[in-house]
Amino acid sequence: MNFKKVAIIGLGLIGGSIGLAVRKELPDCVTSGFDADAKVRERARELQLADDIHDDPAEAVKGADLVILCVPVGAMASVAAAIAPGLSPDCVISDVGSSKRSITDALTKALPDHTIIPAHPVAGTEHSGPDAGFASLFHQRWCIITPPQGAPEDKVHALVDFWEGLGAMVETMDADHHDRVLAVTSHIPHLIAYTIVGTASDLEEVTRSEVIKYSAGGFRDFTRIAASDPTMWRDVFLNNKDAVLEMLDAFLTDLALMREAIKAGDGEMMHDTFSRTRAIRRSIVALGQDDPRPDFGREHD
Amino acid sequence: MNFKKVAIIGLGLIGGSIGLAVRKELPDCVTSGFDADAKVRERARELQLADDIHDDPAEAVKGADLVILCVPVGAMASVAAAIAPGLSPDCVISDVGSSKRSITDALTKALPDHTIIPAHPVAGTEHSGPDAGFASLFHQRWCIITPPQGAPEDKVHALVDFWEGLGAMVETMDADHHDRVLAVTSHIPHLIAYTIVGTASDLEEVTRSEVIKYSAGGFRDFTRIAASDPTMWRDVFLNNKDAVLEMLDAFLTDLALMREAIKAGDGEMMHDTFSRTRAIRRSIVALGQDDPRPDFGREHD
Repeated sequence: MNFKKVAIIGLGLIGGSIGLAVRKELPDCVTSGFDADAKVRERARELQLADDIHDDPAEAVKGADLVILCVPVGAMASVAAAIAPGLSPDCVISDVGSSKRSITDALTKALPDHTIIPAHPVAGTEHSGPDAGFASLFHQRWCIITPPQGAPEDKVHALVDFWEGLGAMVETMDADHHDRVLAVTSHIPHLIAYTIVGTASDLEEVTRSEVIKYSAGGFRDFTRIAASDPTMWRDVFLNNKDAVLEMLDAFLTDLALMREAIKAGDGEMMHDTFSRTRAIRRSIVALGQDDPRPDFGREHD
Repeated sequence: MNFKKVAIIGLGLIGGSIGLAVRKELPDCVTSGFDADAKVRERARELQLADDIHDDPAEAVKGADLVILCVPVGAMASVAAAIAPGLSPDCVISDVGSSKRSITDALTKALPDHTIIPAHPVAGTEHSGPDAGFASLFHQRWCIITPPQGAPEDKVHALVDFWEGLGAMVETMDADHHDRVLAVTSHIPHLIAYTIVGTASDLEEVTRSEVIKYSAGGFRDFTRIAASDPTMWRDVFLNNKDAVLEMLDAFLTDLALMREAIKAGDGEMMHDTFSRTRAIRRSIVALGQDDPRPDFGREHD
C-alpha cells in the first residue's frame, strides 16, 4: 500500500520540508496542512508547503490515510484531540518528535482506536518556521521508526516506503532504545551547547562582544545548535528526562576526569583521549553523515 | 617599517597558511621555512609553502626580520633555543599559539636579548599538517597581538600591518586577558567536544555505530573540533590551566543548574535559557564570524 493523502499538522521546518519533499518526490500523493498559528498558515499558503492549508485541524486530516504531527513534543496530546473528529478510521498517525516513548504513550492514550506509528527523521537545521523548510532536508539522513507492539505490518511498511520516498534511510527500533540513542546523539549535544553559550554570555571577566569576536576559535560551532527552537527543545528535555539524565551523568563523570587531568598536568591522559576522537569524525564523514570538507565546508573568502 | 623576510618555523596548517598567504598578499616579502619533521619539509617543498625550506632551523631564520613560531605551545622553548644561533639581533620573534602568558614567559626566558611580540590568529580548521593550509585562512578572522610591556612600538605596528596584510583584523590585549578570552571561546569548547565524543564512543547501551549513524541530530558538530590535532591541544590545556579551570567551573555550575531543571521538570528555566542563546548566534553571523546559511552552509543534496 502507498499513502494517497498525507495531512501535515504543524508547518515549521520539518512539516514544511515534508510538504515540499512530497510534492517533489511523491507527486501522486496529495498533501493537506494545518498550523495553529494563523500567520504560519498564511505564509505556508504563499510558499505552497501543502496542496491545501486548512484553518481547522479536523478539516485538514479529512480523507488522509497518513497524518504526521510536526509539533513540539509537549503539544502532541492536545493536537491529537483536536484532529480526532476528522480522522478516517483506518488512517495511520505518525509524528516527527525527538522523544518516542512519551509520544507513543500520549498518542495511544489520546487516539486509542487508531494505528499509531511514531517516527523521527534525524534531520534539521538551526532555523525554524515555515520559511526554513526545503525539499532535500531528508536526503541521506536517517529516519527512525518505532512501531509499537502489534502495529500492522503493512502500515509500518507503507511508512518506511514513504520516508524512503523522501530520500531518507530508514531504521526501526524500540521507542526506549531510540530515546537513549538520541539522548547521546542529539539531546545532550543541544543541552551542552545551550549551556556553554549561556555561560559565555554571562561572564564578568570576558565581555559578550569579545565572545562574539573571537568565536571562530571553536565557540561559534556551539552557537548554531544553541540557536534551535526553544519550545521544541524544552519539550524534549521535559519528555526524555531519564535517558537525558543518564547520558548527562556519563558525560559529567568523563568531564570530571578531564578536569583532574588538567589540574594534575596529566598530558598523557589528554593526548590519549584527544587521539581516539578523530576516528569517530572520520567514520561520520565516510558514512555520508557530514561534509567531508574542512570546517563543514564553510567559505573562507 | 615592513618585514622583508619572514621565517616560518613549523609548516602545518597555520605555518603553511602563513607561507601561502604571504606569497599571495605580500609579494615583496620573502619567506623561509623549517619543520622538525623531514617528511613535512619534503611535502612543504612540493607545495612551495615557503620560498626556501631549510633542514636546519638556525639556517631558516638567517636574515629574517620576523620569525613566527608555528609549533605546539609545549615546543616553543626548545624551538627558540634551536633557532637562537641564526637570529639577527634586531629581528622580531612572534608565534601563533593559543596560550599567550606561558609562551611569553618561555620565549622571554629562552631569548632574553630579542624582541618578543606574541600573536594568535583565531583561525583554523580541524585538519592539520602541511596539506591543510590555504592562503585565505586568515581573511576576516581576528588576530590577537599581546605585546609585553616595553615592546618597541614600531615593531608592534609592523606586526599589526603584517597580519592585516594577510587579511586579518587585529586587536591587541594583555596576555592574561587573552588567555581568559580564549579559554571561553576556544579551549573549553574543544575540551567539551573531545569529552562528549569520548563519552559517546564508550557507552554500553548505545553502540558506536548508532552514534555515527544518527550523528546528524547534533553530535556531528562536536566531532569536527574533536578531530583537531591532539598534541597541539594537550599543550594548550597544560599551558593555560588556570583560565581553563576557571571557565570550566563556571560551565559546570551552569550545567548543574540545568540538570536540576531537567530533574525538576522546570520548563520555564529551560525556555528562558534556550531563548537567550539565539541572540549570540545572530551577532556572530552579523559580525561576519560565521556562515549565514543554515547548517554552516552544509550541502543537502
